[in-house]
Order: sequence, then structure tokens, then C-alpha cells
Amino acid sequence: MFWIQSAPFVGLGGLLLAVLIFFLIKRKPVGTGLMKELSQAIHAGAMMFLRREYAIIGVFIFIVFWILFFTLGHWSAVAFLAGALLSLLAGYIGMQAATRSNARTAFAADKFGTAKALDVAFMGGSVMGLSVAGLGLLGLGVIFWIFHDTQPAVISGFAMGASSVALFARVGGGIYTKSADVGADLVGKLEAGIPEDDPRNPGVIADNVGDNVGDIAGMGADLFESYVGSVVAAIAIGVTMGTQKATWMVLPMAVIVVGLFAGIVGILGVKIFRKINPKVALRWGTYLSVAIFIGFIFLVVHHLIGGMEESHLEDVGIRGWLGPFWALLTGIMTGVLIGAFTEYYTSARPIRMIAKASETGPATNIITGLAVGMQSTVLPVLSIAVGVYVANHFAGLYGIAISAVGMLGTVAMTMSVDGYGPIADNAGGISEMAELGPETRRITDSLDALGNTTAAIGNGFAIGSAALTALSLFAAYTATVRNLPGMQGFTLDLISAEVVVGFFIGGLMPCFLAAITMKAVGRAAREMVTEIRRQFKEIEGLMEGRAKPDSQRCVAIATNAALKEMIVPGALAVVVPLLVGCVLGPASLGGFLAGATLTGVVLGLMMFNGGGAWDNAKKWIEEGNLGGKGTDAHKAAVVGDMVGDPFKDTAGPSMNILIKLMSVVSLVMAPVVVQLHRWLIGG
Amino acid sequence: MFWIQSAPFVGLGGLLLAVLIFFLIKRKPVGTGLMKELSQAIHAGAMMFLRREYAIIGVFIFIVFWILFFTLGHWSAVAFLAGALLSLLAGYIGMQAATRSNARTAFAADKFGTAKALDVAFMGGSVMGLSVAGLGLLGLGVIFWIFHDTQPAVISGFAMGASSVALFARVGGGIYTKSADVGADLVGKLEAGIPEDDPRNPGVIADNVGDNVGDIAGMGADLFESYVGSVVAAIAIGVTMGTQKATWMVLPMAVIVVGLFAGIVGILGVKIFRKINPKVALRWGTYLSVAIFIGFIFLVVHHLIGGMEESHLEDVGIRGWLGPFWALLTGIMTGVLIGAFTEYYTSARPIRMIAKASETGPATNIITGLAVGMQSTVLPVLSIAVGVYVANHFAGLYGIAISAVGMLGTVAMTMSVDGYGPIADNAGGISEMAELGPETRRITDSLDALGNTTAAIGNGFAIGSAALTALSLFAAYTATVRNLPGMQGFTLDLISAEVVVGFFIGGLMPCFLAAITMKAVGRAAREMVTEIRRQFKEIEGLMEGRAKPDSQRCVAIATNAALKEMIVPGALAVVVPLLVGCVLGPASLGGFLAGATLTGVVLGLMMFNGGGAWDNAKKWIEEGNLGGKGTDAHKAAVVGDMVGDPFKDTAGPSMNILIKLMSVVSLVMAPVVVQLHRWLIGG
Repeated sequence: MFWIQSAPFVGLGGLLLAVLIFFLIKRKPVGTGLMKELSQAIHAGAMMFLRREYAIIGVFIFIVFWILFFTLGHWSAVAFLAGALLSLLAGYIGMQAATRSNARTAFAADKFGTAKALDVAFMGGSVMGLSVAGLGLLGLGVIFWIFHDTQPAVISGFAMGASSVALFARVGGGIYTKSADVGADLVGKLEAGIPEDDPRNPGVIADNVGDNVGDIAGMGADLFESYVGSVVAAIAIGVTMGTQKATWMVLPMAVIVVGLFAGIVGILGVKIFRKINPKVALRWGTYLSVAIFIGFIFLVVHHLIGGMEESHLEDVGIRGWLGPFWALLTGIMTGVLIGAFTEYYTSARPIRMIAKASETGPATNIITGLAVGMQSTVLPVLSIAVGVYVANHFAGLYGIAISAVGMLGTVAMTMSVDGYGPIADNAGGISEMAELGPETRRITDSLDALGNTTAAIGNGFAIGSAALTALSLFAAYTATVRNLPGMQGFTLDLISAEVVVGFFIGGLMPCFLAAITMKAVGRAAREMVTEIRRQFKEIEGLMEGRAKPDSQRCVAIATNAALKEMIVPGALAVVVPLLVGCVLGPASLGGFLAGATLTGVVLGLMMFNGGGAWDNAKKWIEEGNLGGKGTDAHKAAVVGDMVGDPFKDTAGPSMNILIKLMSVVSLVMAPVVVQLHRWLIGG
Repeated sequence: MFWIQSAPFVGLGGLLLAVLIFFLIKRKPVGTGLMKELSQAIHAGAMMFLRREYAIIGVFIFIVFWILFFTLGHWSAVAFLAGALLSLLAGYIGMQAATRSNARTAFAADKFGTAKALDVAFMGGSVMGLSVAGLGLLGLGVIFWIFHDTQPAVISGFAMGASSVALFARVGGGIYTKSADVGADLVGKLEAGIPEDDPRNPGVIADNVGDNVGDIAGMGADLFESYVGSVVAAIAIGVTMGTQKATWMVLPMAVIVVGLFAGIVGILGVKIFRKINPKVALRWGTYLSVAIFIGFIFLVVHHLIGGMEESHLEDVGIRGWLGPFWALLTGIMTGVLIGAFTEYYTSARPIRMIAKASETGPATNIITGLAVGMQSTVLPVLSIAVGVYVANHFAGLYGIAISAVGMLGTVAMTMSVDGYGPIADNAGGISEMAELGPETRRITDSLDALGNTTAAIGNGFAIGSAALTALSLFAAYTATVRNLPGMQGFTLDLISAEVVVGFFIGGLMPCFLAAITMKAVGRAAREMVTEIRRQFKEIEGLMEGRAKPDSQRCVAIATNAALKEMIVPGALAVVVPLLVGCVLGPASLGGFLAGATLTGVVLGLMMFNGGGAWDNAKKWIEEGNLGGKGTDAHKAAVVGDMVGDPFKDTAGPSMNILIKLMSVVSLVMAPVVVQLHRWLIGG
């Protein structure tokens, strides 16, 4: 079939395009010797983190590989391995590009102005975007091609591999970035009284490394997981859909094939629109790719399902051949809506409310920020609920899963925009450290500010897509369990105590993980503070600019701390669902997943949006409102921002991964769980 | 049947005992003229709040009464009215006693020492305890007697009345107490630099009124609701339990009859043990009542179920005649465990961790406090999950409901201990304002400190019992819907989109309510601040003690603000579940309740425990640790405490009520919801 065979090749094409762009970036000038040096220090720090992180992930993958090998067979183990390796590879390529685009962006801003600087930064981001989409499509395409007829369950292993890597990348990256940020700020800005990104600060390189580690590698792994997970869920549900199942399995693959094309068009669009202004370029580029994508999926649905008999559609609960199209469209719209709501809650009235509350001190700032965070969950979750309802109306459980695929179809474009932000942020840091002058700094600042907006939208999108993906993986889990021998009557009735018990335990997991990661940031930040203080005290002439800080050492400390702290949450996320499933049974596990998804989404949104709102309230005051910098209101707002940091960059993003990973582990291990539970209860 | 006929009389007996104790308190000496005056100002403020609050609740009750009248018939409406009126009456009696015990406790501390002061304060609390249990039992007893044979559904209306009052009492009381507290502290302590409870502070009377309004009337209404709700849920499930249903309906009534006796024994125990020391007295008194209660329920279960045929038990999923006993015991143990966990998280290591984090500023204090709050949800929720599992194992859904009844059986004792705290707190305030000297202040401070511990345990118990009650009401809802014509196959399968949609919308409600109430506290506190500032500026000689503050006006402002702000959350909690049920159907409503209960319990625990931990971390520093008062660590800890205040006294407690109220509204209105939904979808 055309779509099956084309998928790997289109994926490979996307990947080659990424590599091409990467070499185009490398050919651009880096700037002065100092800029090159700074860029290289960031690059080296990031690569050191990746290498060491990958080594730890490697151990984990090795263990899980053999577990899968002996429980589900060698093909599932291989698929798992492939998913993990491709996720690692995507992160590696993306990081290579990002850490090579930062100085070049600063240079372009210095020599050619805004449009050119945007171009370089966005090219850097698009390498990550195309790698995520290209490698995802390539991997899924090959595995689908081989196994869709004979052993479709194997395909799920691929998603589990992607999820495992994502957890470590997001949690480790999140802890790294915030411990470096908080550590550098606490000592540098508050104690030593030197500005942000000052080259004398020993923690500033680690801070810049952190931006890449968290927002590029972490976010990339997150979206890679959602992308792969949503497709796998749709396929897993498709498998259970009667005689026409082949078509239902192929549809999600076809959607992401055309999605990659739409994404590439969007990326080109940014290049074309960049001369108008950066904001317009990114926005119109996104709209362009979405518009083309909608056209494409209509054609795909028409091509694949247009000719299907009504009775076949009715048998599996699909309303007309356009049903899946409406579900896909619902997913796209849900993504757009959640992004818009996130943007609202991290700007406009809510942040002014927080800023005003800062006038009566840090306590009222925090209370208002928490209230904004909580309130900001309402509209996004309602969007998800409505999206689920509509998608289900048009195409049943399959509709829910395919709507997630629709939301993530243009991931190449979404991730490119997301990746642009931290590159612009880094470029600002480098232009500050290399003293490129106020005009250059103004350009990089404006690009960075835009990056904050895109980051807010991107974060909203990430958690929205995580929610839909987790839900469809959950649906796939239930469909899979029902298909197992002796499990035809499987339901997840909330009236049964097993489901309720699992439900409560699941609901705890996000809370527990958030607590762990927040405490981890605290511990790691304290280590950084101690080290930076020591350097300021012991390195003679550092404050006067006569001696250089030992940035390497700060990078090493952040790396070690982050990697140490990510192991427990990572292990928990895999072990607890299996334990619940085996001891309490598959129904408890279903309840567990539902409970975890609910509190995970709610807490995640609260932490994301609350953190973003605190950050922007501080920025709003710094723009000169309410008296500007140096006032008591500003000091209170700085407290809020510091509280928000681990919220929005560590604990919040971890929620995304947690709910997807636990769902995909349950989906893949469902047959084992059912068996073990039977054996345990002596059935 | 003996148990049916004895219930109202035992309830009446408990009530008479409360009235007797009330008159014993009134006969005790009030102290100096100033003390009398202060006590009367607090009393008048509290009564003013109650009167105006009751007027607003009256309007609400009037509206709901007629809705019930025309949809469910006049008897349900009357039962609703009775539940509401008795809850109001319990609050009124309790407040009368509490506001008359405070000065008398201070006087006893001044003249006779600790043991006597404890005695007076605890007597004051026990009036509330006995009113709650006595009026609950009386009301339930009468309605049960009349309707259990003919129209058992009417009994649920009683619980809905209790719940409606509770919402307003808790939310209104919570907003009142915290706006007064924060307002008085912000201006008095921080701006004017005068100590806590200083008579020159215009807000100090309002602050003392607030303690009564929040912790006596609010907590009393909360536990009254749980008490009544758990019994009603068990009865509603009992109705559906086949030929022996009469026995299953009577059992919860019998349990609370003996529970009231056990509670009275515990109250007497405190009187006996008071000479050892206050902590021992309260603890041993509680243990005594629990031990006796366990003995009693064994006899009750033996008496009622001991002779039942095995086949009858098996038919309804009960394991042996002892099954219900084990379920009851599970409930009792769950309550004890949750109390112990709450005590741990608001003392010991967690608060030292928060205190240590304060050394690096308010931001780290807040982050650590939030992490502690999140982590503190794990063990209590696991206890609930295990409790549900065990109770279900021994007695099915009925077991879950009856375990909640077990947890709440000794409410007379639990509420007495809870009520003691704010009275001791008030006594401390009065002894400060009346300048009774350091020795008296030391005694009242030690009683107050003990009150903080009992409050922590009591709060844990309140949310634990709310969770179990909400769950059993939820179970009762599903059992009731299944019993409706044409609904035999009713399930709440999490695999169906309707349930999932409801589930997500439900999960939002606690977040939304918490955001609303926290913002309301902020607004109300700001009004208080403005007024107190005005008085300090405009009243000449106030700071020098030559003129008196206009305390009345502060009381009026807090009252108005609280009453205005409680209306929207109150209306939402009733309207949204009905809307979900009618538009999306009874299955969505079931998912809605489950989702709301989950996030409500998790958020509630997080806010309760986090708030308590912040408070106690501040107190720990004030005891002289880490440098004591005046250090930067102390300042940071004060910020944490202020953030924690609306958490633990406003938003946290509101969660308890929200989840119970929405469940009981759904239970009572289930037939209407099913009808309306059918009509809406044209079925």
C-alpha cells in the first residue's frame, strides 16, 4: 500500500532536510573569537550533559530491553530499543544544531539585523523540529511496514522506548536548567550584584547550557513521545476494529506523512515572512502549515475512507466517512485553543493582577499566582473535555486517538518554533557576555521576548497533546486488554472498588513526582550556590574581571546533580503501574491511569501557567510598570518568579511525560500484567 | 425495632447534655470588666456574622426548598429543610458556647491554672461536639423512623440540607477568618509594629471573631455534613440490598447511636484525665471513646447481623456476619492514620525542612512548603485507598459507606477536641488584651499550642472523612441510578467518552473553587487593610492608647466581604453537577463526581498540610531556632505562613464541602437528572 511504503522514505527525507539545514548553519560565521569560545563552552557543556545522561539512560534501556525480551519476545524488545535510540538521536541532532546557532544568531543580529537573526535562530530550531518528525516517521514507518500485518503489538514497543527516554530527558533536563538558573541568579544577581549573563559569574555557562538541555532536548523528547505515542495508540485501537482494520491502522501513518510535508511548508513560510516581522513570521508560518495540513488530511481521509461501505463504518462506531476528518480537525482546534488560553494566562490581565498583588509583598504575589495557576486550568481542560466529546461523537474511541494524531501532525513546525526560543535566549546571553553593544542586545532581547510567548504557547500545546496522547494510550490499553484471551468482558467501572483504589493511587503519582522534582531542584540549586560562592571567594580578581571563573566545574555539578535526581522518579514511573497492575489487577491499573492523567493534567497546567504568569509579571514590572526595577513590588515579583521556575520548567513538564509513560508502559505490558495478576491471585 | 425508636431519643439526650454544659459554662465567672467587654465584643461580632449569614443561607434554602418541592415532592423538601435548620442550629448553639467560654477560660487560667482552664475550654468545645452529634442523630432518627419503610429516598434530602449549609458556613467562615487575620497582621504587626492581639489594633476583634466563625461554626458544619452524609449514603445503599434491606438500613443508625454514647464517655474521660496534663487528657479521652466505640459496634453488629443466614450475606456480597464490623473498624483506623500523618507533616522533619529553606529566602521557603504539601498527600490518600479496598473486600460497596460511618461515629468527641482549639486561641487573645500577665499568657499559649496540634489532626480527619463520605455518597448515587426504571444496566465505564468527559470537568471544579476562594480572601483582606490603615490615621490618640478603635466597623467589613464572596462558589457547587447530569447524562455526572472527589481530596490535603506546615515552621523559628524572631529566615517564614493561611483555612476546607455537596446533590436529584436528560436528548 502506498502510505505504508512511503512513510519511511518521507521520514528519511525530513531527516535529510534537517541535516542539510544543520550544515547550512555551520557554514554561517560565528563572530569574534570570544563569541566562538562562549558558544563552544555552551556546546561542550551541553554535549557533556548529553553524553553522561545517555550513559545512564543506556543502563535503564539495557535492563528494560531484556525484561521485554523475556516477557514479550525479541521483536518488542527491538522496537523498544529503536524508539529509545531514535529519540536519543533526535535530541542529539537538535542539540548539535541549537548550540551552534546561538553565537551565529548573535552575530547575525549584530551585522544584519532582526530578520537575519530570526532566520538563523529559527533554522536552528527547525533542525530539532525536522529531526523529531523525520526520525519519528522513519522509525514508525519501518516498524509498521514490517509488523502491521503479523504482530501489530510490536509497534507499541517503539512508543515505550520513546517515552522512557523522554522521562529522563525532561526530568533530568528540567532539574539541570533550574538548578543552574536559580544558583547563578541567587549568588550573581542578588549577592554579588552583577547583571544577568555577566561573564564573571561562574554559573552563567551552566545556565545557558541549561536552556538547551531543558527547552531543546527536553521539549524535543516530550513532543517526540507525544507524536509517536498518539500514532501508536491510534494503531493499537485500529487493530481491534474488525474487518477493515488495515485501513484504520494506516490512517494515522498517512496523517503524519502529510503532516511532515505541511510542517516543511510552514518552515519555509517563516523564511518567506521573516522580513515583515518576527512575530508575524512565526504566526503566519504556523497558520500556513495548519491550513495546508487540514487540506491534506481531507484528501487523505477521502482517499482512504471515502470509498468504505456505510455498514463497515457503522460497525465500528464511525459517523460517515468524514467522521475521522472531523475528529482530526477537533484535535487540531483543541491544540490551537489550549495554546491561546495559555498565552492569555501568561500575559494580559492575569499577569497584571499578579504584578499588582506584588505591591503588598511576596505573600500576596504568591497567593495570586497560585490562584491564577489554578484558574488557568479551567479553559484548557474544558477544551480537552469538549475535544474528547466531539472526537468520540464522530469516530468513537478511535476518534479520540486520531484527534491526538491531528494535534501532533504538524509537530515539525511546532517544535521548530519551540526550539527557536532557547536559541534566541542563548544569543542574548552571548551578545551580553561578548559585549556586542546595546543595539544588538535590543534585537536579541526582542527575539527572546517573542520566544517567551512561543514557549508559553508551546508549553500549553505540550501538555494538551500529552493529555490527549495519554488518553488515547489509555483507550488503547483498555482495547488491548479486552482483546486478550478471557478478558472480553473487561470494563473499568468506577463503581467497582478495584477501579476506585487504582484511581486514587494513580491520582497521587503526579503529586508525588512534582514534590520529588521540586525538592531535587532545591538540593541541586544549593550545591550550585555553594560552588559559585566558593569561586567568588577563592578565585582572586574574579569580580574585577582579571581572572576567569571555573565554569566547567559548575556545569559538572549541575550535570551530576540532575542525573542523580532523575533516577528515582524515572524508576517509579515504570515500576508503580506494573506493581498496581500485577497486584491489584488490570482494572485497578486502568483506574490508576485515569486518575494519574487527571491530576497530572490539572497539576501540570497549574504549574506551567502559574510559573509563566509569575515570570511575565516580573518582566512586566521590569518594563517600568508599577515603579519598575528596584521597588518592593519588583522584589516581591522576583520571589514569585523564583517559585515559578521549578514549577514551569521542572515539575510541570515532568507531568506530561509521567502520564504518557505510565500509559504506554501499561499498554505494552498489558498481556504480562494480566498473566502475572492471574498467577498471583491463583486464578 | 429498638434501634429505630431509640435513635431520636438518644440524639435528644445528647442535645440536652450540650445545653446542660452550656448553662454550666455560663455560671462560671467571666473575670474583670474589660474581659467581659472583650468577650462580649467577640460574641456580638460572631452573632452578627451568623445572623447575616443565616439570612443569606435562608434565601438559598428557600429557593432549593421549592425546587425540591416541585421535582421530588414535599417530603424531600421538608427533609432538606430539616437538615439545613438543624445544621444552622448546631452552629448557633456551638458558637454561643464558644464565644462564652473564651474569657472564662482566660479567667480560669489566671486564677486556677492549666487543668481548670483546659476544663473550661474543652467544655466549650464539647457543646459544639454534642450539638453536632445530638442534632444529627435526632434529625436522622425522626426522619428515618417516619420514612424508612415507605419513602427511603426522602432521608437523603436531610443530608442535602446539611451540605448546603456547610458550604456557606465553611466558605463564608473561611473567607471571614482569613481576611480578618491577614488584614490585622499586615497593618498591625508589619506596618504599625504592635504585637499580635494588641487592643489598639482595630482588626483584632474581627480576628478573634474569625477564629470562632471559621474553626467552630465552619468545622462544625463540615463534620455535621460528613456525619449525616455518611449515614445517608449507607442507608441509600442499604435500600438496594435485597430482602434483608431493613437490617442494612438500620445498622448505620445503630452505629451512630452507640457512637454518641462512646463520644460522651470520651468527653467525661477528658474531665477525669485533665489533671495529668492537657495533651494526655485530650489523647486518652479520644482513645477511650474509640476503644469503647469498637466494643459497642461489635455488639451492635453481633446483635443485628449475627443471626443472619449465610446465603443472605452472600447475596449482597458481605463476607460473614463480621464483615460489616471489619469495615467499620477499617473506617476508624483510616481516620486515626490520616490524623497521624497530618500531625507528622505539620510537625517534625517536614517543618524543620521548611524552616531551613527559609534561610535562603521566601522563594525557597515557598517551594519547599509546596513540595511538603504535595508529598503529604501520598500517605493519607494511600490510607483511603487501602481503607476502601479492605472495606470493599469485607462488605462491598456497603462496606465503603459503613466504614465512613465508623470513622464519624465518635464525632461528638472529635468535634469537642476540634472546638477546644479556637476557644484556647481566643482565651490567649483576651488575656493579652486584658493584660493578665505573663504567667496566664504562658498557660493560654500552651493550651493554644496544643490546639494547633489538635487542629492539624482534626483537619486531616475532616478531609479524610469528607473523602470517604463523598465516595460513599458517590456509591449511593450509582446504586440509586441503577434502581431507577430503565437504568438497570447503568455503569460508569471509564472507557466511555461520556464518563471521561464528566471526569475531566469534575476534576476542574476543586481547582476552580480554590482559585475563587483564594482570590476572594485577597480582595476581602485588602478592604480590611484599607479600613485599619484609615483608623490608625484618622482616630487621634489610637496608637497612644488614648482612643479606642472602631472594631465594629472591621467586623462589619469582614462580614460583608465574606458573605458577598461565598455566593458564587455556593451556587456553582449546586448548579454545575445538575447541568452536567442533565446535558451530558447520568454517566457523565458519575465521572464528574469521581473526578471532583479525586482532585478535591488531593488539593485539599495539599493545601491543609502545606498551610499547617508553613505555620508551624514559622512557630518553630519563633521558638528561637535558626536565630529566632527578627532574622531573615523568620521574615521568609512569615511570608510562607501568610501564603499558607488561605490554603489551610479557606480553600482547603472548602474542598471537603465541595466534594460532599456535589455528591449529595447528585444523589438526591438523580431521578430528576435522569428524567431531564432523557427529555433533552429526546429519548
